[in-house]
Amino acid sequence: MSNTNHYVYAFGSTRTEGDASMKNLLGGKGANLAEMCRIGITVPSGFTISTEACTAFTEQGRERLVDLIREEVLQGIAFVQGEMGKKFGDAADPLLLSIRSGARASMPGMMDTILNLGLNDEAVIGLARKANNERFAWDSYRRFVQMYGDVVMGLKPVSKEDHDPFEVIIDMVKDARGVKLDTELDAADLKELVQRFKSLIRARVGRDFPTDPWEQLWGAVIAVFESWNNPRAKVYRELNDIPQSWGTAVNVQAMVFGNLGNTSATGVAFTRDAGTGEDQFNGEFLINAQGEDVVAGVRTPQQITRLGSQRWAQLALVAESVRRSQYPSLEELMPDLYQQLLAAETLLENHYADMQDLEFTIQEGKLWMLQTRNGKRTGAAMVRIAMEMLDQGMIDEKTALKRVSPERLNELLHPVFDATALQSAKVIARGLPASPGAATGQIVFFADEADAWVKQGKTVVLVRLETSPEDLRGMSVAAGILTARGGMTSHAAVVARGMGKCCISGAGAVHVDLKARQLIIGDLVLNEGDWLSLNGSTGEVFQGKIPTREAELSGDFGKLMALSDRYKKLEVRANADTPTDARVARNFGATGIGLCRTEHMFFTGERIVAVREMILADDKAGRRKALAKLLPMQRSDFEGLFREMNGLPVTIRLLDPPLHEFVPHDDANQRAMAADMQVSLGKIKMRVEELHEFNPMMGHRGCRLGITYPEVTEMQARAIIEAALNMRHQGLTVKAEIMVPLVGTVREFTLQADVIRQTAAAIFAERGEQLDYLLGTMIETPRATITADDIARQAEFFSFGTNDLTQMTLGFSRDDANKFLPEYLKQGIYERDPFRSIDQQGVGALVDMAVRKGRQARADIEVGICGEHGGDPTSIEFFHRTGLDYVSCSPFRVPIARLAAAQAALD
Amino acid sequence: MSNTNHYVYAFGSTRTEGDASMKNLLGGKGANLAEMCRIGITVPSGFTISTEACTAFTEQGRERLVDLIREEVLQGIAFVQGEMGKKFGDAADPLLLSIRSGARASMPGMMDTILNLGLNDEAVIGLARKANNERFAWDSYRRFVQMYGDVVMGLKPVSKEDHDPFEVIIDMVKDARGVKLDTELDAADLKELVQRFKSLIRARVGRDFPTDPWEQLWGAVIAVFESWNNPRAKVYRELNDIPQSWGTAVNVQAMVFGNLGNTSATGVAFTRDAGTGEDQFNGEFLINAQGEDVVAGVRTPQQITRLGSQRWAQLALVAESVRRSQYPSLEELMPDLYQQLLAAETLLENHYADMQDLEFTIQEGKLWMLQTRNGKRTGAAMVRIAMEMLDQGMIDEKTALKRVSPERLNELLHPVFDATALQSAKVIARGLPASPGAATGQIVFFADEADAWVKQGKTVVLVRLETSPEDLRGMSVAAGILTARGGMTSHAAVVARGMGKCCISGAGAVHVDLKARQLIIGDLVLNEGDWLSLNGSTGEVFQGKIPTREAELSGDFGKLMALSDRYKKLEVRANADTPTDARVARNFGATGIGLCRTEHMFFTGERIVAVREMILADDKAGRRKALAKLLPMQRSDFEGLFREMNGLPVTIRLLDPPLHEFVPHDDANQRAMAADMQVSLGKIKMRVEELHEFNPMMGHRGCRLGITYPEVTEMQARAIIEAALNMRHQGLTVKAEIMVPLVGTVREFTLQADVIRQTAAAIFAERGEQLDYLLGTMIETPRATITADDIARQAEFFSFGTNDLTQMTLGFSRDDANKFLPEYLKQGIYERDPFRSIDQQGVGALVDMAVRKGRQARADIEVGICGEHGGDPTSIEFFHRTGLDYVSCSPFRVPIARLAAAQAALD
Repeated sequence: MSNTNHYVYAFGSTRTEGDASMKNLLGGKGANLAEMCRIGITVPSGFTISTEACTAFTEQGRERLVDLIREEVLQGIAFVQGEMGKKFGDAADPLLLSIRSGARASMPGMMDTILNLGLNDEAVIGLARKANNERFAWDSYRRFVQMYGDVVMGLKPVSKEDHDPFEVIIDMVKDARGVKLDTELDAADLKELVQRFKSLIRARVGRDFPTDPWEQLWGAVIAVFESWNNPRAKVYRELNDIPQSWGTAVNVQAMVFGNLGNTSATGVAFTRDAGTGEDQFNGEFLINAQGEDVVAGVRTPQQITRLGSQRWAQLALVAESVRRSQYPSLEELMPDLYQQLLAAETLLENHYADMQDLEFTIQEGKLWMLQTRNGKRTGAAMVRIAMEMLDQGMIDEKTALKRVSPERLNELLHPVFDATALQSAKVIARGLPASPGAATGQIVFFADEADAWVKQGKTVVLVRLETSPEDLRGMSVAAGILTARGGMTSHAAVVARGMGKCCISGAGAVHVDLKARQLIIGDLVLNEGDWLSLNGSTGEVFQGKIPTREAELSGDFGKLMALSDRYKKLEVRANADTPTDARVARNFGATGIGLCRTEHMFFTGERIVAVREMILADDKAGRRKALAKLLPMQRSDFEGLFREMNGLPVTIRLLDPPLHEFVPHDDANQRAMAADMQVSLGKIKMRVEELHEFNPMMGHRGCRLGITYPEVTEMQARAIIEAALNMRHQGLTVKAEIMVPLVGTVREFTLQADVIRQTAAAIFAERGEQLDYLLGTMIETPRATITADDIARQAEFFSFGTNDLTQMTLGFSRDDANKFLPEYLKQGIYERDPFRSIDQQGVGALVDMAVRKGRQARADIEVGICGEHGGDPTSIEFFHRTGLDYVSCSPFRVPIARLAAAQAALD
Repeated sequence: MSNTNHYVYAFGSTRTEGDASMKNLLGGKGANLAEMCRIGITVPSGFTISTEACTAFTEQGRERLVDLIREEVLQGIAFVQGEMGKKFGDAADPLLLSIRSGARASMPGMMDTILNLGLNDEAVIGLARKANNERFAWDSYRRFVQMYGDVVMGLKPVSKEDHDPFEVIIDMVKDARGVKLDTELDAADLKELVQRFKSLIRARVGRDFPTDPWEQLWGAVIAVFESWNNPRAKVYRELNDIPQSWGTAVNVQAMVFGNLGNTSATGVAFTRDAGTGEDQFNGEFLINAQGEDVVAGVRTPQQITRLGSQRWAQLALVAESVRRSQYPSLEELMPDLYQQLLAAETLLENHYADMQDLEFTIQEGKLWMLQTRNGKRTGAAMVRIAMEMLDQGMIDEKTALKRVSPERLNELLHPVFDATALQSAKVIARGLPASPGAATGQIVFFADEADAWVKQGKTVVLVRLETSPEDLRGMSVAAGILTARGGMTSHAAVVARGMGKCCISGAGAVHVDLKARQLIIGDLVLNEGDWLSLNGSTGEVFQGKIPTREAELSGDFGKLMALSDRYKKLEVRANADTPTDARVARNFGATGIGLCRTEHMFFTGERIVAVREMILADDKAGRRKALAKLLPMQRSDFEGLFREMNGLPVTIRLLDPPLHEFVPHDDANQRAMAADMQVSLGKIKMRVEELHEFNPMMGHRGCRLGITYPEVTEMQARAIIEAALNMRHQGLTVKAEIMVPLVGTVREFTLQADVIRQTAAAIFAERGEQLDYLLGTMIETPRATITADDIARQAEFFSFGTNDLTQMTLGFSRDDANKFLPEYLKQGIYERDPFRSIDQQGVGALVDMAVRKGRQARADIEVGICGEHGGDPTSIEFFHRTGLDYVSCSPFRVPIARLAAAQAALD
């Protein structure tokens, strides 16, 4: 800590020491206040005590800090007095101050704001007289004592169940007066409140409320610095990788008042529409009000622009005459001040080259800007603003790309609830936001019934304890899926994301009673057929029907995607199992299929019968017979995929899941299967029992199936190669990539590769033609990453299956991790859910090692990733750095991945 | 291949070109034959065609090979003719030859031996005349045609179900003669057989049987070289890492005959007792017989020494007079030849400095040695011979250590079946040899009933589909355990090995019908109470009762262990959960406990009630209440361990398994639990359902429990520290090491370490005393190995949990892997079962990385391993190389580990 630097940075109309670049020293708020002053915006004067003072406080304590900065603070106050023409502590016309913390990054848990500091029993009288408004003065004083008592003197509720002690007193006084609203209390009431607040403070804290404004000021400053070190703030920083050493700044600023009568007002404004992105200045204000009144919603705020006011009136069904008289815009009401505000917003947006969120106060006809910051906006607004600012020459391409958060594109890609209907909807449960979008439909509990209901023209939401591959058909026709169990990468979640279908998983409060066909949440009982609505983007479950609408992809979206493609280095493929998926993926800009899960083709229609026949077969001959039935179906599946992806690579994974996923586990379905297949129930039960696994994730699956049943690999290889040849005959360009799953040793790969190559050679001989195809493997066991060099000598491509690789590296079952993962995230054991965003230090290190070893052994090996992480922006940034060739993700995440890949390439 | 070297190496009394050191060139058999000649042993002359000739054959083909070696072979035959005084191909007195393959390492699947080569329709008459024994001559000819027809001309059964075509003919002729034994066929019959054999060969092969001895010779030599490249031999070499390039040698040697009358004999002998190791020459012989007759068991062989003969007579209840007249020893019958044999065995044992297994033939009063090799022996004999030869100065300490195969010590440590009773026992099923030893007892199907039956004084074998922790008590009282499911590291297997109790797991043919209380194997049905016997060392299941006896640890065993300890670098600790285990381990020489699984203490008696109360508790307060009941019990457990291990380190692992292992999963037991605990059945069922996991191996277990329920960690830490202090008060030296399981990130460790350190500090404050203890972690997730440096900065020791690390690195569930692992081993995907012997390339690479990273971060970190691999000699060799401080294994494997550690240190 340097003692030669100063700690206090003034800002105002005559002198400003900071600027926007000094966020580290002055915090975000302080730096922006200084910047506004620099470019000529009228801001109440003040000064910022720097973050270095905070560090000095942490390291050297209160006494030493006060010694260090006392002189500068005195000078700062003198500067503010000079600018504002009032004196701090003056009983007749007191300068009042606001004290706000302001760190580099906004941080919950820290002290926020104290207003009206400087008031005491004498000054309040001077203020009343000067403002000619006794109620205003006492209300200001009341607010100050309450805030200061809370955050500086520590008068908080003693437990979660306890009430705010100040609010308790307010309620008592209101009861005594027989009134309901704070605004109905008069000056005398407020005066009484101040007295009672002070008594409470004395009783609880054992000290009098400080009457000396300087004592108040130092108390507030120290409180801000102390709040930097409170436990909640510390944990937050740990979890968000914010160094403890950063410290917070303190902003001390002159108060201005919007509640001094009808020439005063206060408001918030956006330089563009935060909802749509439209380049239209907009905002709300209230005459004779303070900032918090705008938010409190007691009075209806008025619109700032005439256009905004007219639009509002249309929606609110207010006649133009009524609007003009009762809800005039600022543009109409105070045209001069409106022009000043317009000039300020234009100046600020141009200056920051981004949409600004502004706070302003008009005090007795004079406009003060209190804050500017980059405005929050919807995903749609993000895209539109970035593209329009690029068109307007305000920002360059790279900046435009960085302005859009990839994750927010989700909002543009999925249906959303009708905003008006949503306002009155009731959240009855919460689960994991497993797959985004909105859905509304009638409850069904069984997948086959979902199908039946939909055929009757109904819209359904499928509610299950958990889903299994048997539910695929029902899931695909349902509007949305709700499961009581399972995590973000449970079967339901993964499949739903693949389908781009709304899904909430792991809604723990939901009990499903299949017998009674009831969904029970606490006391609430919903029956089959009742309406239910799901917001898969937030995890909220609503009772009843809420209309949804499809989001449209605007032209700006297309422009953003084209721009992304110009910058990104990673290719983006999609995980798609059906021609429909493939078409969606291609529309979203996928340049290939990175993962086709062939087993998903095993469930539809009569295929499952042949699959089960294979599973029940006693020997290879029996299996071959059943596989022969599957061959034409699989071949036609692949033909459909190759057709859709004409010219682009299609990576097909051989059978992966354990066989028990294909047989029924309940008695009723086993009986049905026995009847269908004309075998004894006993035989089916015995086979199902044989297939039981303790840890199916690590059981008999992946290439282990192909090794023990090479005839399955043979059939699949034949279906792929024959389909490819057939499509080439139709003039299409086919790029087939055959992928062996779950390889752990190179010998597993070569054994499977031998089967595939021999099958292909046999077909080539039969048909007298050849075909180029790639033969590679998924890298999804830790052992495969360790021996990636050996494997790369045999395999032509790698595709990282980071879902399984994460499970095995961390030892987390993704379906079970919800029992401890929330606690793990809370305690900062993992920064992010490792199934959503790749664990770079652990799993990532293995990926990195495998890429290096793989390329050493085969320089031109194609390397991609097809786990869930392929659609996660943070992970994509990692994959870019690691030098992968492509990521592959759900079709609906392809646009997100394209943008994320572009952003990764910018850094 | 060098053309300047020669390919043929003669051996005999006048000239010998090879010696024992030339195994690579001459194969084991050829090198030993040459060595015997060199040291003056009488051996039928011959020559060895070197492995280089085999390579030339493989690379350049038959024609070229014959060109290369023809001249030398001619010279070789001439040499043999000169030595033996007979001529190859001579019709009157033919030199007959034996042709044998002989590679560096013995290898099944290759051609073995052809005897009597050189015979044809003329020579057989000369042989008959010369030997004055027509039957002998025709029998020799019959054998030759049969062997040659089989291995050179390829007349084998056409399928597995088919019979040996030659044996079919023999049976036909015997039927026609009305006789049962081959020996009952006379010369004419044998002559007929030869004719019919030749006809069969002509019909099947389309060629006549060769009559030219030279053609016979070349055919046999080429057949040996071809057999090197047959598919079965190739696969065997691949699986055993034997280079294809080694090649085999061919030994061509003059025939001698022990069946030329009463001055001829043949026999086998051992220089020491192969069963007990006693330094006593022994063996068997038959007068007027060929080698195979000794093995065939048609006649009762006689003993070579008088002492052996007398001992045999005692066992066989043969009176001394009868013995002397009917079964005299060679020592008595042919004292001169016996003295020659004795001189030879002494010379050979001294020469090779190891117990020899000899073959000899006496032809008309002349002794010929046919073979010498290091004799196979029991584990007990291994130990005794090594220690006695060391005492006798024949070998040095290092050689003595290397002479004992660690795995074979098992035979000394566990009960074994009575050998006589075993002979008539019937194997009814086979499973995995999960835990060695022999057991016999009455079948019970339920663990609690095992307990009840044993209390009634019965001996039981517990038969289960699989076991679970609830079965612990029953397992501990049973004589042996048989499970139908599960692998070598299933619950049953691991627990049984820990207890040193006989166990066979995964006996797939065994069906268990719990309702009927029956064990069904094919058509065989055994009921509860029926007798069953298990050989846990071989995996054999026997019907009925077979008496067992405890093996005793002889003084030689103790000497071997002391010797091991002088050489080994690795410490050997034991995995022990109870004071009894600890005592056994200490007796076996463990120098610490490397793993105490605290959860095993949770099952006994009333503890399980408290554990379940904790699991059912709704909140932390409820859990604390239940834990308070467990505290004194755990503390006394630890006191017992510390007492037994006074002065030695005791590593205690905190609670590891998922909580559902502690609750009952069947309705009856759930009802019992509800009644016991006075809660509703519904509540229990709901909690059990909540605890259900898809992949429990990767679920809510290990330190994940301690993180979500820190009060459990707190209780266990308190129990450990208080127990340690209490024992120190009794004057004992306590070295406690507290181990946090399943750590994946350093933060998991530090969070748990904080709880433990705070608990310890609180106890120190309460009691006013301090205690040193180590705080470390298991390294068992791949992620922990990757971040081992981070973890080592916080943890004071590492203990590799290689069971789980193997599961996660390979993605194998050990309980499910039996569905594909046998196939994987067969196909050479893994050389050895990775749960028995550590996968060095995969899992081993992670261990090695973690050790290096760990030591970089903390140079003096203690590093051990406590998985099943800690008791596997091959793995121990790896751990030695990797620089671990100790291995920890089941108490019963401690001696094995000590010896293996010593052997590792020798290399």
